[in-house]
Amino acid sequence: MSKRTQVRRLPKKAVNDREVMNQILDAALVAHVAIVDDKQPYALPVGFARDGDRLLLHGSAASRLFKKLADGKPCCATITIMDGLVMARSAFESSMHYRCVMVLGEAVELHGDEKVAAFDLLVKAFMPGRELEVRKSTKKELKATTLVALSLDEASVKVSNFEPGDLPEDMDSPLWAGIIPIQHTFGTPRDAADLKPGIPVPGYIAEWTNGRT
Amino acid sequence: MSKRTQVRRLPKKAVNDREVMNQILDAALVAHVAIVDDKQPYALPVGFARDGDRLLLHGSAASRLFKKLADGKPCCATITIMDGLVMARSAFESSMHYRCVMVLGEAVELHGDEKVAAFDLLVKAFMPGRELEVRKSTKKELKATTLVALSLDEASVKVSNFEPGDLPEDMDSPLWAGIIPIQHTFGTPRDAADLKPGIPVPGYIAEWTNGRT
Repeated sequence: MSKRTQVRRLPKKAVNDREVMNQILDAALVAHVAIVDDKQPYALPVGFARDGDRLLLHGSAASRLFKKLADGKPCCATITIMDGLVMARSAFESSMHYRCVMVLGEAVELHGDEKVAAFDLLVKAFMPGRELEVRKSTKKELKATTLVALSLDEASVKVSNFEPGDLPEDMDSPLWAGIIPIQHTFGTPRDAADLKPGIPVPGYIAEWTNGRT
Repeated sequence: MSKRTQVRRLPKKAVNDREVMNQILDAALVAHVAIVDDKQPYALPVGFARDGDRLLLHGSAASRLFKKLADGKPCCATITIMDGLVMARSAFESSMHYRCVMVLGEAVELHGDEKVAAFDLLVKAFMPGRELEVRKSTKKELKATTLVALSLDEASVKVSNFEPGDLPEDMDSPLWAGIIPIQHTFGTPRDAADLKPGIPVPGYIAEWTNGRT
């Protein structure tokens, strides 16, 4: 944690626990990655995976975002999982349950064997089991994809999982108060329109646990 | 749509339809809002609602993000809903189904009656029905919250809902291909720990449709 990533708002929600951070990162599929172009910030969704103490981000080599990332420009990757609505007796104290990781830094582009390994790790992270049967990516495919690594050294973690924090004077309110959970789940796999008959959904998909998103 | 928000990557996924944009915005609860501070971008999750042709964003008046937004600094609000994993026969052609709106511009701070109306609209958007029974916010509460509006004039919409787009040479692959849907749903409401006995979950909560997140 650096001065830049010290949680300043509602510090009781700050979490200084690497394990908690890793669980959030491993449960999420997409980060919102922000870069700056001509003083204008742009935030875009990017599929990512955690590789130890760094994030792997992948995207089109032709995109502005990945050109900036590959150039080592300052970026911010934010990963948020919404867990619920907190309905307090007042609107003001109502809020949300969420888990959020914000990572600051400059990414480093990956090349050669390291790039291939990172690509494989992304496949395994997004589609566990698929990495064992999918064909290798071609040189052309690897060239069209930029892969960058962003260190988790400068990261902050915020977890909101509290009960409604109503004011004493609202405790006689006749209103219901509580939590409405938000759940993210995988539904039933659907065959591609052009799938040849007789190819079943692979068993490893059924093994995926819920809770990812 | 401006030159800055013209979709450049995979333009077939660009959508120029206000209704589609509005549906995405109305289905989401949280935007990732990016600002720049000393050349460093920061992206943070913010609860928002659509008010006609603008977004209403709310947050702590004490936060850096909302100071920047209230100052009219350039910002980007990105709203992404993940709808599924697309498993193609190759890793390269595998992707995700998603709906994404990116809004650029400078926000405008709201004051007085307009601020109160915006606050009410946020309550209605997050907790439909609650706005009819919750007490009015106090002056102190309103002061602690900054509300800004961000015009939707400069926005881009990207929707990925395609079948796997495999290469002809991969069509003889023995691998399964298809879509694994991702669903976002509300779970069963849970009473606050300090809820007094005999206060039931209000009926309007049961009326909320799924699909929001």
